[in-house]
Amino acid sequence: MIRAGIIGATGYAGAELVRLLLGHREVEIKWYGSRSYIDQKYAKVYGNMFQLVEDSCLDDRIEELAKQVDVIFTATPQGFLAGVLTEEILERTKVVDLSADYRLKDVAIYEKWYKIEHKSPQFLEEAVYGLCEINREQVKQARLVANPGCYTTCSILTAYPLVKEGLIEPNTLIVDAKSGTSGAGRGTKLPNLFCEVNESIKAYGVASHRHTPEIEEQLGYAAGESVTISFTPHLVPMNRGILATEYASLKKIKQPDGTVAYPSDAQVRAAYEKYYGSEYFIRLLEQGTCPETKWVEGSNFVDIGFQIDERTRRIVMMGAIDNLVKGAAGQAVQNMNLLFGFPETEGLKLVPMFP
Amino acid sequence: MIRAGIIGATGYAGAELVRLLLGHREVEIKWYGSRSYIDQKYAKVYGNMFQLVEDSCLDDRIEELAKQVDVIFTATPQGFLAGVLTEEILERTKVVDLSADYRLKDVAIYEKWYKIEHKSPQFLEEAVYGLCEINREQVKQARLVANPGCYTTCSILTAYPLVKEGLIEPNTLIVDAKSGTSGAGRGTKLPNLFCEVNESIKAYGVASHRHTPEIEEQLGYAAGESVTISFTPHLVPMNRGILATEYASLKKIKQPDGTVAYPSDAQVRAAYEKYYGSEYFIRLLEQGTCPETKWVEGSNFVDIGFQIDERTRRIVMMGAIDNLVKGAAGQAVQNMNLLFGFPETEGLKLVPMFP
Amino acid sequence: MIRAGIIGATGYAGAELVRLLLGHREVEIKWYGSRSYIDQKYAKVYGNMFQLVEDSCLDDRIEELAKQVDVIFTATPQGFLAGVLTEEILERTKVVDLSADYRLKDVAIYEKWYKIEHKSPQFLEEAVYGLCEINREQVKQARLVANPGCYTTCSILTAYPLVKEGLIEPNTLIVDAKSGTSGAGRGTKLPNLFCEVNESIKAYGVASHRHTPEIEEQLGYAAGESVTISFTPHLVPMNRGILATEYASLKKIKQPDGTVAYPSDAQVRAAYEKYYGSEYFIRLLEQGTCPETKWVEGSNFVDIGFQIDERTRRIVMMGAIDNLVKGAAGQAVQNMNLLFGFPETEGLKLVPMFP
Amino acid sequence: MIRAGIIGATGYAGAELVRLLLGHREVEIKWYGSRSYIDQKYAKVYGNMFQLVEDSCLDDRIEELAKQVDVIFTATPQGFLAGVLTEEILERTKVVDLSADYRLKDVAIYEKWYKIEHKSPQFLEEAVYGLCEINREQVKQARLVANPGCYTTCSILTAYPLVKEGLIEPNTLIVDAKSGTSGAGRGTKLPNLFCEVNESIKAYGVASHRHTPEIEEQLGYAAGESVTISFTPHLVPMNRGILATEYASLKKIKQPDGTVAYPSDAQVRAAYEKYYGSEYFIRLLEQGTCPETKWVEGSNFVDIGFQIDERTRRIVMMGAIDNLVKGAAGQAVQNMNLLFGFPETEGLKLVPMFP
Repeated sequence: MIRAGIIGATGYAGAELVRLLLGHREVEIKWYGSRSYIDQKYAKVYGNMFQLVEDSCLDDRIEELAKQVDVIFTATPQGFLAGVLTEEILERTKVVDLSADYRLKDVAIYEKWYKIEHKSPQFLEEAVYGLCEINREQVKQARLVANPGCYTTCSILTAYPLVKEGLIEPNTLIVDAKSGTSGAGRGTKLPNLFCEVNESIKAYGVASHRHTPEIEEQLGYAAGESVTISFTPHLVPMNRGILATEYASLKKIKQPDGTVAYPSDAQVRAAYEKYYGSEYFIRLLEQGTCPETKWVEGSNFVDIGFQIDERTRRIVMMGAIDNLVKGAAGQAVQNMNLLFGFPETEGLKLVPMFP
Repeated sequence: MIRAGIIGATGYAGAELVRLLLGHREVEIKWYGSRSYIDQKYAKVYGNMFQLVEDSCLDDRIEELAKQVDVIFTATPQGFLAGVLTEEILERTKVVDLSADYRLKDVAIYEKWYKIEHKSPQFLEEAVYGLCEINREQVKQARLVANPGCYTTCSILTAYPLVKEGLIEPNTLIVDAKSGTSGAGRGTKLPNLFCEVNESIKAYGVASHRHTPEIEEQLGYAAGESVTISFTPHLVPMNRGILATEYASLKKIKQPDGTVAYPSDAQVRAAYEKYYGSEYFIRLLEQGTCPETKWVEGSNFVDIGFQIDERTRRIVMMGAIDNLVKGAAGQAVQNMNLLFGFPETEGLKLVPMFP
Repeated sequence: MIRAGIIGATGYAGAELVRLLLGHREVEIKWYGSRSYIDQKYAKVYGNMFQLVEDSCLDDRIEELAKQVDVIFTATPQGFLAGVLTEEILERTKVVDLSADYRLKDVAIYEKWYKIEHKSPQFLEEAVYGLCEINREQVKQARLVANPGCYTTCSILTAYPLVKEGLIEPNTLIVDAKSGTSGAGRGTKLPNLFCEVNESIKAYGVASHRHTPEIEEQLGYAAGESVTISFTPHLVPMNRGILATEYASLKKIKQPDGTVAYPSDAQVRAAYEKYYGSEYFIRLLEQGTCPETKWVEGSNFVDIGFQIDERTRRIVMMGAIDNLVKGAAGQAVQNMNLLFGFPETEGLKLVPMFP
Repeated sequence: MIRAGIIGATGYAGAELVRLLLGHREVEIKWYGSRSYIDQKYAKVYGNMFQLVEDSCLDDRIEELAKQVDVIFTATPQGFLAGVLTEEILERTKVVDLSADYRLKDVAIYEKWYKIEHKSPQFLEEAVYGLCEINREQVKQARLVANPGCYTTCSILTAYPLVKEGLIEPNTLIVDAKSGTSGAGRGTKLPNLFCEVNESIKAYGVASHRHTPEIEEQLGYAAGESVTISFTPHLVPMNRGILATEYASLKKIKQPDGTVAYPSDAQVRAAYEKYYGSEYFIRLLEQGTCPETKWVEGSNFVDIGFQIDERTRRIVMMGAIDNLVKGAAGQAVQNMNLLFGFPETEGLKLVPMFP
């Protein structure tokens, strides 16, 4: 039984962490950190937790917290962890950061897209990008895990095998992503109001969303060269879920008979199987089936489907996740499981809820 | 490890049973019965179950099924189980019936409200009404459990202690209930279409809904006399959840000082505590807190709040459940746990999902 | 062509006024008042108004405004108009107040329920309660119209004929009302966020909502005696619409043959017809039909249905309106039409939008 | 005053036609055709029309209908009109067809994508594609108007000026479209149920949706060459609205100084202004503003925004319409106005409803 602390426990991602950790057999939550609700009962902030969590909220003094727990989750605004992280903390405890502070290796790119100074670039090198299905072995050895963003998790995993295997032209990749509203957080802002979101859909952050360089960096590693993509997020009137619809031009590959031709359905499927065939949390749907976000709601699954368009020589890849689970808290728990040698699925064998 | 069979596994309640039983440590599902989808893979009918359920749907031959399993759940239309149940089946296996066939002790009332003939009234006497918090001991001894309706579970539990303790006039009880749309089932009917339900609310079945006599019968037992109430269901544009807002006139009671007066907040609270104080699944909210269906979503909890109105000498009681869990599949699993001596909460310690 | 000014033009009710007045042939909006958005283009605050409204927002100096327009609409927080209204203003212009400042004749009741001091009780006597179908003639003569609240409009109109004709016991009246979320306003408060409202229903303000005394006062006039009722509002995950489900015990009345008996369906219907038979905006639904809020969306209609419950000797009355139209801006325009002698339906013959 | 008949008046598009025509000063509906509801009161099929439409539904005998009205709208399944249209009908009356029967000039393409035989290809040549902003003059002279599809209207208008002016590479065009659920019609099919659609998003018809060739044909005329695009529709949990997010590579153009370079924001904007600057129903949003479907709800507007992505040399174009208005019934009325010489905006100056 390990002890965990959460800084930022009263945001939606933090609350989802609480939900998941309450069902985890090897962890006990010792610290519900929330600057906004200090000394208030956690269950008053989240009515669903009534009689399940008796604790009150604590502050965000991470140094003190590091003395008390084995793992710290930071579900905090960008810049928070970078501003307070020290070597002492990392010597005492593992840190899984749900913010973007250590996701990008290049501090210049971070500062350009996030428009804040990075206060502790010295840890960038060490931080492991916690996309478990791809960086599993590195995560196991890490002290500091940069938990991927919600859009990025979905966007990367959906395209990764095809980029890695060279079946698509990486720079033709266009990611049109749609997210439920919990992705916008619990901030009391006008665009988050029910009447503003309900019965509407819109794009936002076009050509400027911060998850873009994160997708590019990771797919760049897969491609073995730098990659530039188009990424457009959309806000959808639903609580949870991300659907990424991804378009790319197919690349001719050498065929068994020595000729060169566009990859077939079977070859695309084989590429997915190669990387995900034994992954519990990635479900490659049957041919002709398009993922629906409802099918993964509340779970840590990534559902992936694809369709080759013979007319345009493009492939349409589709990936669906629950943004709060695989896109945030679930992946954070999966990373924690790797860090501590627990079964990777512990606490995460959640059956998707339908309807 | 016991074996379970489900007849009606492809309705929403049946599917929720599957979700819950997959997370139960003592049960294995051996039979996914569905007349409409025989031989089709269950996971094609419910995409969320992809790679979690590999079975195909079977028919509804309950006699054959009874030979293979320890417990049968029937999530079937009214009249189905009454038409096929036999003594032989009950000698072989336990049956938890999610339909209304054995909920009402008086066959005449059943036939009047359901407008079908009851084919096996001989089992009515034996059947136990499976409202676990009230009939726990009888359920433990039962062969046949009549799992309560969704509206009834919520309506009864919300008022029960006050009726039982004589704090309200039972015949003044008015239950104004609001349900998510999964309560209407998965039938392809015009009123269930997205565009017909979304952005609208309506009452239906006014003064004629079939759950009325069920509520009256059970509250009648609590009151020790026959009870007649008003019950009005409403359809709400959400997937899950029932909220029952219940109104009743308070009844003067003898006070500690010998006078007679209307019960106080504390006395009402004490009545709830008396019956529910040690119930895991019933959460009596703090004074001034109104339940929200979102706080119980996906869980087996019943959240109850109340407010005394000094001006009208009425009390407003409010109860919230997830109609598919405590209102159907969760309660069925709870009954199964009682039937087989498992811990009552096994498979049901689901943390409500928010948002 | 008259000129209108709106103070509070950027709330949802104010914005709905703009929508309706843009389609009105006899009015021109000259002043979009909004303390929060002074000097900002109105169409930046409401994107739907792009290219339809070119004006920028102005302040709320009502004295200046009164010099420029023929009618002022105040869609402002409680207390605003009471704090600034003067005889000079009323001599210059008509005022339709969408707040509660002049709805209650008894200043003590106002101050008790609204918990603020009333700054200009001298206008209470003069103010006309603008429920057009009931006070039509008084409105025509008024200078100051107190536009009814959304819950109250629906609650009163649904029960009025039966109270007036003595068919129900007024003090048994219980109003269980359900409102879309626009009724909560455009304030950036946590409970108004999409993820907090969506997929949930709750009661609020139980036994304490401010619309209660307004309903009681008006129904008291109809009953000819003081009336005390139960009123419970609920928040529903939809943008627009109020459904009031109202319960009351029937009262025996003298029958044509000289006996005394409970009123029949026909007698109830006749009572509704007597008061509403020639009202364009009130639609008495056919026997057995329950109103749905979607059927009135975007329109000024009130849909009313009822069901007598022979078992309990109660009647269930149901009324549905669009809270922003008949519950606010539509009724305000209807009042304006009466004030200026325009056809009462001018600008209001909106066909409900479905779906 | 002209007389109109509707065949298919009880689908969502037909019902929207009724809503719009009831507010049109020059038209009277004489025939509510609906094979499914013959002899039933129209207002029983659409409760919102209670007391607004007193007619009952009639059959679909178009020859008889043609004798009685000046214009026929067919909001019918594919193949219906092609199967019954005759020269005699067209000599008597104008026809606006909301189905796809006469949208594609090439009968082979029609039969390939729709998988039915075209029964009257002889009218294909004559039929005018009723995208008013582009084919206004031809519509005025037509007898038979092929009213564009909902996705196509939005997709074409969003990209048209840039294709026409050669600012983008037509064959790089990718249209990722999102539609409200009314676009799926009122058929009682499982995927249309509330609980299946709500809280979920999915793509469907990937690389095979029937609106694809329609978009390609029209953009091909603009480009002056054949165009092949990617088109992916998505189902969104809302009643109305289509958002098309469109991606294309910019094409270098000759600049005023004689050099060749990628078009600037101003040049793109100028292209839109050139074609839409005086169009009432097309609103080119300000730089940096992304359209939201809610801003056009209930109206005939098309809102268009764009963003150039310097990093990828692509442009992201976004268009939003109400699928039932500009995407169906509104455009049909606009076409009718052109056919009969009414002001083009008559009956269509609907202010979008928000929220």
